[in-house]
Amino acid sequence: MPPSLPSATSVSRVAASTLPSLARNVTTSAGTAVTPNKPPPSKDHHIHSYSADAFPLGFSVSSTHAGIKKKAGVLDLGILISTAKTSCSAAACMTRNVFQAAPVTVTSELLLNSNGKARGFIINSGCANAVTGKKGLEDAWSMSNKTTSLLSPSSNSSNSSNENQGTLVMSTGVIGQNLPISKILENIPKLVKNLDNSPKSWLELSKAFMTTDTFPKLRCKSFRLGDREIKFVGIDKGAGMIAPSMGPPQPPHATLLGVIATDAAVNPKDLQNALNYAVDRSFNNITVDGDMSTNDTILCLANGAATSISSENPMEELSEKTNPKEFGIFKEQLREFAEELAQLVVRDGEGATKFVTIRVKGAPTYEIANAVAKSVANSSLFKTAMYGEDANWGRILCAVGYTPLSPNPISPTSVSVSFLPPSSSSNTTPLRLLTNGEPESDIDEERASEILKEEDLEIEIDLGDGKEESKVWTCDFSHEYVTINGSVSAAFFSIFIKT
Amino acid sequence: MPPSLPSATSVSRVAASTLPSLARNVTTSAGTAVTPNKPPPSKDHHIHSYSADAFPLGFSVSSTHAGIKKKAGVLDLGILISTAKTSCSAAACMTRNVFQAAPVTVTSELLLNSNGKARGFIINSGCANAVTGKKGLEDAWSMSNKTTSLLSPSSNSSNSSNENQGTLVMSTGVIGQNLPISKILENIPKLVKNLDNSPKSWLELSKAFMTTDTFPKLRCKSFRLGDREIKFVGIDKGAGMIAPSMGPPQPPHATLLGVIATDAAVNPKDLQNALNYAVDRSFNNITVDGDMSTNDTILCLANGAATSISSENPMEELSEKTNPKEFGIFKEQLREFAEELAQLVVRDGEGATKFVTIRVKGAPTYEIANAVAKSVANSSLFKTAMYGEDANWGRILCAVGYTPLSPNPISPTSVSVSFLPPSSSSNTTPLRLLTNGEPESDIDEERASEILKEEDLEIEIDLGDGKEESKVWTCDFSHEYVTINGSVSAAFFSIFIKT
Repeated sequence: MPPSLPSATSVSRVAASTLPSLARNVTTSAGTAVTPNKPPPSKDHHIHSYSADAFPLGFSVSSTHAGIKKKAGVLDLGILISTAKTSCSAAACMTRNVFQAAPVTVTSELLLNSNGKARGFIINSGCANAVTGKKGLEDAWSMSNKTTSLLSPSSNSSNSSNENQGTLVMSTGVIGQNLPISKILENIPKLVKNLDNSPKSWLELSKAFMTTDTFPKLRCKSFRLGDREIKFVGIDKGAGMIAPSMGPPQPPHATLLGVIATDAAVNPKDLQNALNYAVDRSFNNITVDGDMSTNDTILCLANGAATSISSENPMEELSEKTNPKEFGIFKEQLREFAEELAQLVVRDGEGATKFVTIRVKGAPTYEIANAVAKSVANSSLFKTAMYGEDANWGRILCAVGYTPLSPNPISPTSVSVSFLPPSSSSNTTPLRLLTNGEPESDIDEERASEILKEEDLEIEIDLGDGKEESKVWTCDFSHEYVTINGSVSAAFFSIFIKT
Repeated sequence: MPPSLPSATSVSRVAASTLPSLARNVTTSAGTAVTPNKPPPSKDHHIHSYSADAFPLGFSVSSTHAGIKKKAGVLDLGILISTAKTSCSAAACMTRNVFQAAPVTVTSELLLNSNGKARGFIINSGCANAVTGKKGLEDAWSMSNKTTSLLSPSSNSSNSSNENQGTLVMSTGVIGQNLPISKILENIPKLVKNLDNSPKSWLELSKAFMTTDTFPKLRCKSFRLGDREIKFVGIDKGAGMIAPSMGPPQPPHATLLGVIATDAAVNPKDLQNALNYAVDRSFNNITVDGDMSTNDTILCLANGAATSISSENPMEELSEKTNPKEFGIFKEQLREFAEELAQLVVRDGEGATKFVTIRVKGAPTYEIANAVAKSVANSSLFKTAMYGEDANWGRILCAVGYTPLSPNPISPTSVSVSFLPPSSSSNTTPLRLLTNGEPESDIDEERASEILKEEDLEIEIDLGDGKEESKVWTCDFSHEYVTINGSVSAAFFSIFIKT
């Protein structure tokens, strides 16, 4: 176990008493009170370690304890900066909650002013800088500007519009309170000075993201694109208030911060399109509790530092127009990687004991398949049934039937429902519960409870009315969720919880 | 305590073991395992008793144990029949879940064929006759037809279209199983023979509605309309799967059965309009768990039997067109009465320890106010905060902010939030938490926890952008809810639960 993780939770227990007691009333979740002092053993296998060459080229990171969280040593401030000679394209999907936090507003403006370029980002945990009015905006701007001012222009001198490029901002923690901005500004010079690209620093950055998370969420992957090896690194955080809906005109999404940095070269506009596509099919398709927040941000940075085996030239910018085939590969790789990162959040869902995939197929459109899957994935009665390991197809059918679609194209007599065990299971035979709207007459109950005992399971719903499909990932609804978010003691300790 | 109520729960404990074990897998809720053997003391005061003259004229009822629920004496079958000389207008608001249960389909057809007239209705609890295909429809029709065939035509001989008038049908209980139809048909003659209008029989009918309910839901009221005294009687049931949305083009609604019978004379078309209006502002504005079902039905019967102090003539039919003022009074009285009945369901919400009113005012339209109120009322994080007595305005604001409205007219800087104690409270001073999007700097925390200790409380959200308002009623989200719907033992005992 990394040393600073346990304290990341205990700090809030200590801190709560040292802070204005009202603070306990202004958080949007209340997890740490019952968050164990280390990740539950069952979560340990989600912490991966990587060698230095796993990380994309041309990025450096550093983290520190700035004192936003009270206990010494707990990482609560970090930066990621592109050191590539080429300029860094940047894209973001962010909350559309009308109570948009200051850092969300500032990051949006920075991307607009720079036409989708950025130096990197700065993140703090422990305070969300949300519902903080004018002062909140000033603080977010000064975090960004202070960082940018300390970066050597030469770090990507080739970029003419360098002066327009800023440092993006993310914050997560308690809402309704101002940032301890002087502490943050004091620490930025040290952060810039300590920038490096060691695996240890990447892991520390992922810890600086954490709030109620029980484990740091860091992933790497690489793939070949033409004569270049493209690398991704991804970090995200979130455990409750998870039901994202980010990207093109959409309702707001959940408490989720994430970044995907790659050394591919991608045209900013196409990077945004690829991120929209990827987020729509990953982060937008997870739900823990159906609740949505004010700070949510997924960033994507592409600095073009990937080397070639055959050429010294910098990588040619990927774009839908000029190299559609390679761009298509990049886009799919990004989607797949975003899916892996998004699932980590569900795995760490507050109180979750199950990881459930809802797969809706045989739909006339992707949107209909997706709406049906989300209707089931957010049903309290379905989620409590999963917790109770109850093969309750009545609740599944019910949630399918009330999907808010108008006109509603679902034909009751063509819907079929099956339980699928995980591919890792010794017996992977699916269990059919309902065929064309008629209950199966002789469901093997032993088989049903076998499948329901698994931590991972999949519900397959076939609408029998088309070729489109969508997957949504959810967890169960447990006593622990109520304890985490509903116990008075949890409220008392809820000072450091994410928005 | 009425004698048959305790057994209404214990029966399922006994019955579960006597039924195919698969049955446990096809219910839509799992309440009775932990439903206490009598209503919790705190619920006793919701059981009212009425004298004979409190009930509307011209209706008779009877109930029996038909053996749909296993334990002897438990009421599971009942009828309500109009005995008025004038024909009985009938209206209904019913589920739009695509998995509409057989009785819902049959009742719709009956109302269509009779142009909004009916003899009364028959109801069974213990089996919902839902997802039962062709056989289910046959069974629902035979329940209706058998009852109608035994009613003396002379009971409203004045009605020319008598032969078109049928008996409406409602069922509630486990889904995916066929009705024990022979038991039901056997018992109908006895039901018809025993019809009377005694207070005892009305209370028994309200018990025949019950599934996971912990108390029978029966209310009466009367008001003066011109020279006539109009009386209402109302019965409903429901505890979980409650998030109705009935009436004109709407998503589907919740597990809720209810009837309002009145001795007013009302034109069928106007009765339907009045019921739509009333249900939209009552049953459609309650939520327990945001889940919706397949059998939901609210019936309204108006037989015109109300007597006059000045005339022997039957009451003139109320209609929007011919007597708008009197019709308006009737419509408002109906709305108010429906609101009282709807609130009883939230009071009996599965695991509920709080009764919370969400009042959204200062909205540009009723629809916007209503959407915002429902967004808060269905937030798991808000509901667990109420359970934890945590004055967590962050979660309230968050749910306001993610209300799915497009375009979203909410201006963050004009939203204010207050907690209001119940009028019965010793100190009724409201507590302001947020003003025009800015947190109150010095919230009286003692006062906050005082208010949150109350069983009843009200959240007032002022959007500061108009004159419209809407109220939604919800309950908290407790460990007990998870136990009721998520424990394996609950699943084991879930055989008799409502859809």
